[in-house]
Order: sequence, then structure tokens, then C-alpha cells
Amino acid sequence: MPQRVTHEDADCPVARAVDVIGDRWTLLIVRDAFDGIRRFSEYQRNLGLAKNILSSRLRELTAHGILEILPGADGSAYHEYALTPKGRDLFVLLVSLRQWGETHLFDTAEPHSVLRDTKSGKPLRKLQATDHTGRVVTSAETVVHKVGE
Amino acid sequence: MPQRVTHEDADCPVARAVDVIGDRWTLLIVRDAFDGIRRFSEYQRNLGLAKNILSSRLRELTAHGILEILPGADGSAYHEYALTPKGRDLFVLLVSLRQWGETHLFDTAEPHSVLRDTKSGKPLRKLQATDHTGRVVTSAETVVHKVGE
Repeated sequence: MPQRVTHEDADCPVARAVDVIGDRWTLLIVRDAFDGIRRFSEYQRNLGLAKNILSSRLRELTAHGILEILPGADGSAYHEYALTPKGRDLFVLLVSLRQWGETHLFDTAEPHSVLRDTKSGKPLRKLQATDHTGRVVTSAETVVHKVGE
Repeated sequence: MPQRVTHEDADCPVARAVDVIGDRWTLLIVRDAFDGIRRFSEYQRNLGLAKNILSSRLRELTAHGILEILPGADGSAYHEYALTPKGRDLFVLLVSLRQWGETHLFDTAEPHSVLRDTKSGKPLRKLQATDHTGRVVTSAETVVHKVGE
């Protein structure tokens, strides 16, 4: 793997999270996993990326416990990749990427895929940061307390 | 800039968002911007990354309208970078990265920085995906409708 600065030991949870999943292909693989993609060949077809890059990203996601390898559901020799609970907990992150993209990266009339809840068929509500009572807060109303402060 | 596959024209908002901000340094620069970092030299000191990479990431963030360049607040010759409304709208994404990192990338006793709301001094509530009525939904209760479906 290429050498890069890591933030594995950072005491900032954002830095550690970015270290693990702050990569274009990694995020798109996780998106596809939520969409039900399970096999190497399906990822490759859907994402159109080189086999060696896909292998490396799947290996990292498995090493980090975000994906796990399961035997093929149909009893075939091909194994499958499935989100672990740690991986499924990235759902909110994927929703936040989607909602920011919808709001800021599409023209008004431009069509885009929509995430709906299956019961009502309606799009999810916009995510909002809230304080411990549920009141909506903006970034200006928050502060990061560093370790030791 | 290095050649890479882009998803600028994708009809998936996740893909377009990932195309713009799915990069380790970009996400850490946005994090620092929320923490009040404004100047090139401050980013460099805080992130410890090479000048040319920092320049390139700041240029991209400015080109995408996530950061804007402002004259130095103290009247000095050094300009500053500030989050635009589009940039500030990434707050929920940063909170989701932070909360996933807190939950999954730290041991129980391991210290980490904490994002608190300034009024109560307490950590923010955990983000949750909800349907249009506010009911919490899991990924299994949602489906992506592609364009044309």
C-alpha cells in the first residue's frame, strides 16, 4: 500500500474516521453495499474501477471490520461482502453525503436518484444536528473540546 | 491535477458529493474550517501537509464554492479562507464522521475530543436517519429509486 500520513492515533474522531473511510472509492463501495451489491464482479461492473484498486479497497474495508466475507448465498464458490454492524452504522454518513449532494450539486430540474423509506415511499427527512434535548444547532453554536481541556 | 474518474455527471447525489469532498485532506480542511482555522499557514501547521497539496485542495474547495477567499480580518496582506453557506451545510456530514469515529474507532477509556453545544456544554445528540414524519429508519427500511424508475 502507498505510504501516507495516517491519523490512527489522532484524538480527533473526525481524523480517525477520515483515515478509514475518507476515500472516494471506499465511500462508493460502502454506498453500493447499502444498495445490496455483494460480489466482487458486481462492484467492478457498477463502479468501473480497476481490479487491483477494488481488491485493495475491499481488503481495507474488511480489515477495518466494515465489511465481512461470507460464503456465496447461492452455494456457489464466489464469496460475498456484507456490511457488518460497524459498516451499517455508516448509514447516516451516506445519507448526509446524499442530502448535501442533492442540495448543492444538482440544478433544480436535474434528475437524481432518491432515497425513500419503503413504508411511505417518501424521501427521508433532512438530517439536522441537535443538542441533547433535540434542539437544532448550527456549527456556530458548538465548540470542540480537545482532550485535556 | 492527476487524471481520475469523475462522477460529476452521475445522477447519484452520493457519487457527486464524494467526487467533491471524498478526500482525506479535503475533509480535514473542512473540519479545521469549522474549528475556526482561516489562514494557509494555520492549515499547514495544523495538518502538517505539503504546501503544494494544501494549495491544490484549497483551490478545489474554493472552485467548488465550499470556501471563499476574504481579505485578512486584521487588515494584513494575508487573505483568509471562510466557509460559504454551501460549506457550512457540510456540518452534519462532519458530525456524522465524528460520531461514527467516536463509536467505532476508540477504546472505551481512550480520550478523544468532543463536540459540545455551547449553551449546555453537553455533546450533541446522535444523528439518526428519519422518515418524513420523524420516525427513525434503518438502511433496511429504505430504498434508492434510480432516475427513470
